Amino acid sequence: MSEDSRQPYVRRGAEIEYTEVSAADGMAKGVLIGPEQGAPNLAIRRFTLEPGATVPKHTNEIEHEQYVLAGEYVVGLAEEEFTVSPGDSLFIPAGVVHWYRNDGDEEGAFICAVPDGDDAIELV
Amino acid sequence: MSEDSRQPYVRRGAEIEYTEVSAADGMAKGVLIGPEQGAPNLAIRRFTLEPGATVPKHTNEIEHEQYVLAGEYVVGLAEEEFTVSPGDSLFIPAGVVHWYRNDGDEEGAFICAVPDGDDAIELV
Repeated sequence: MSEDSRQPYVRRGAEIEYTEVSAADGMAKGVLIGPEQGAPNLAIRRFTLEPGATVPKHTNEIEHEQYVLAGEYVVGLAEEEFTVSPGDSLFIPAGVVHWYRNDGDEEGAFICAVPDGDDAIELV
Repeated sequence: MSEDSRQPYVRRGAEIEYTEVSAADGMAKGVLIGPEQGAPNLAIRRFTLEPGATVPKHTNEIEHEQYVLAGEYVVGLAEEEFTVSPGDSLFIPAGVVHWYRNDGDEEGAFICAVPDGDDAIELV
């Protein structure tokens, strides 16, 4: 789908396609609003972390701003781990090493907003 | 709070300060991550719409990318109204007239991601 960048629209939750994140184990990503949907400057994505999911230490070239929707999972930021739960938000600057681990029984989910740019994962 | 733009951090839900949006009736806004928290390019905010809330027709100079967290409420986009519920997402380009109305009994809430820039509301 490619939409005019000047047209507003609603995307229903059921429309979103999720794909496994290949560098991770048990993480899936769905783009809610982004360049392919006509958004010119930033994107919002929804990620899920199934119970037992692990995402290895990595960096990205763009900053992440995240909001926790569901579950209770561990996020590593630089050299420290935090257990996060719904309502928490996180700032992960470009280039900062981070990782995830869902030790819980419940699926974790979060929103991740990013500026346009290369979101490639670089493992460290 | 002003933080180094290169430091990652977690903000807990209970830390977020909400202020009433003066141009609206029953809408409050809390900045989760933004320029004051050291984020250089974009911001994520959480808004609440109490039962009966109304936000008049207005425009903003920056685009909005929103994700519905709670409640069921009406969003007007350009010339059409949509009833949205949790899991829906919305793209509201800069300059597009939009409005909100919570006719339900439950508080509405949504995440709104924006690029840095003037977020002033212009009533129409």
